[in-house]
Amino acid sequence: MSIIPSAASQLYNAADFSQGVAYIAGEYLPLKNASIPMTDRGFVRSDATYDVVHVWNGRFFRLDNYIDRFHRSMAGFRMSIKESKDELKAILHECVRRSGLRNAYVQMTCTRGVPKPGSRDPRECINQLTCFAQPFVWIANEQQREEGLSMIISSTQRIPPESVDPRFKNFHWLDLTMAVFEAYEKGAIVPVLPDRDGHITEGPGFNIFSVRNGRIVTPDRGVFEGMTRRTVIELAPELQIACEVRPLKAAELHDADEIFITSTAGGIMPVTRLDGRQVGDGRPGRIARAIHDLYWRRHEEGWKATEIDYGTAS
Amino acid sequence: MSIIPSAASQLYNAADFSQGVAYIAGEYLPLKNASIPMTDRGFVRSDATYDVVHVWNGRFFRLDNYIDRFHRSMAGFRMSIKESKDELKAILHECVRRSGLRNAYVQMTCTRGVPKPGSRDPRECINQLTCFAQPFVWIANEQQREEGLSMIISSTQRIPPESVDPRFKNFHWLDLTMAVFEAYEKGAIVPVLPDRDGHITEGPGFNIFSVRNGRIVTPDRGVFEGMTRRTVIELAPELQIACEVRPLKAAELHDADEIFITSTAGGIMPVTRLDGRQVGDGRPGRIARAIHDLYWRRHEEGWKATEIDYGTAS
Repeated sequence: MSIIPSAASQLYNAADFSQGVAYIAGEYLPLKNASIPMTDRGFVRSDATYDVVHVWNGRFFRLDNYIDRFHRSMAGFRMSIKESKDELKAILHECVRRSGLRNAYVQMTCTRGVPKPGSRDPRECINQLTCFAQPFVWIANEQQREEGLSMIISSTQRIPPESVDPRFKNFHWLDLTMAVFEAYEKGAIVPVLPDRDGHITEGPGFNIFSVRNGRIVTPDRGVFEGMTRRTVIELAPELQIACEVRPLKAAELHDADEIFITSTAGGIMPVTRLDGRQVGDGRPGRIARAIHDLYWRRHEEGWKATEIDYGTAS
Repeated sequence: MSIIPSAASQLYNAADFSQGVAYIAGEYLPLKNASIPMTDRGFVRSDATYDVVHVWNGRFFRLDNYIDRFHRSMAGFRMSIKESKDELKAILHECVRRSGLRNAYVQMTCTRGVPKPGSRDPRECINQLTCFAQPFVWIANEQQREEGLSMIISSTQRIPPESVDPRFKNFHWLDLTMAVFEAYEKGAIVPVLPDRDGHITEGPGFNIFSVRNGRIVTPDRGVFEGMTRRTVIELAPELQIACEVRPLKAAELHDADEIFITSTAGGIMPVTRLDGRQVGDGRPGRIARAIHDLYWRRHEEGWKATEIDYGTAS
């Protein structure tokens, strides 16, 4: 059986790795030819966890932190993989190396696996690691990043921590996706989701920060603890900016001087409209700009960076 | 590129269809060789809906009802497929026919599709239909169905309707899956999940009914409106059993004379232990048995049945 995929990957080998490279069960193949079994619980029960690290200018950013978090997510959902952390790092490197991409979005995924015939017991599945590297993804395009994003607070609530622990990264995005449709219908670009008590949580693939009187606030609860969020919390003191991690009411967001979002897929991005009204003076804010600039300066300096050896194709 | 999969499916063609047949993009193949693209949002954002109809003794049960519900789920998540209802029915038939299975679990799935490179806009995806037939799946094995299941009320809460509309069938099961782990740890077989207010919702793949003083109650809110649940609600009057569809407190479940669960994957199954204590006299109840028997008698009679023409292999 395995002869056919191998023959296929040889055919593809030289082709089209630049659009993405996937790793599955010891093989590297073009991302567009990569697939997962239809009966893997990772698909049919969204029984999976993942993480995304980015590569900028040929370097991974905070690779060890991302890998540690991926392991915490797996443990949280009671999964484990046979690959060691070093082996995982080598696989991610190899995906990027083969792609040749200098700026990349690199995902590692653990699925529960394919159940034994007739079994519904997740403990009997063998958890599976898959990885891929693809061109860097931006949540917002260049113009949106320059001018600032238009955001709504959605009518859909974020899935609460009592149902799915948001610290463990997961694919349960239907709440986020329905909120995206609502944002588009209201002429905005992105939604942010409240919880049942009217506190702000997060949006599709990003955390949120509110700025008021020079202080920044980001929600403490019901959110994925994003690496860019963490980086902002770490960098703020260098800029003499006070940062609070605490519940954030929707009303506070409406009163903000500035709003910005953070994501591995794009860094720090300003929000200049909320629910149809301008935020502050309607232009990207001074504090968001300062944090944005420091974030990318740290990248240039190689802060918490892991160099990729692109070498020659094997 | 399509030469390879086609060659593969010819190789497999005579082989192993009895363990399941999948349909993808105009092709039928053994289920174990079926896969979905790694970058389909149906996987990486669990951006998908599905439905499951069963075949018993060579007949679909309530096929039109299931297909109508699948269409409502798709509309709910703003998806649509190019296949008409008649074409979908023909595909499901063909999956079962090729499998030769007389008792089958037949799934139809709609995924959002693969995004355009760099795009995060779900509206730009082309929604994809996939289907499969596999041997009938039972939530509980024969001994468990005979003696009754042991259940816990989990500490994990069901994802609330304010986050994901449970009437639209979806793969957001991490709450259910974590509750399954908890059930196993506590020596039980299945969990049922409460909502935030302590009302009972549903369990992994089933609805729940409580029986007290000859009346049956099933939750009205935060649940998927299962076809077997609906069938029980329809059949109860024939047995002169009053049925209430309303909020069900955990305390009521603890005081029940009988408990039973309903699922396409097994019909009506008694629960005889709850949170470590016996339910009623600890044996499958009289009312659950009466409904169980009527449910399967209706199957024998061909009630709401669609005969499958197994004919000869094409």
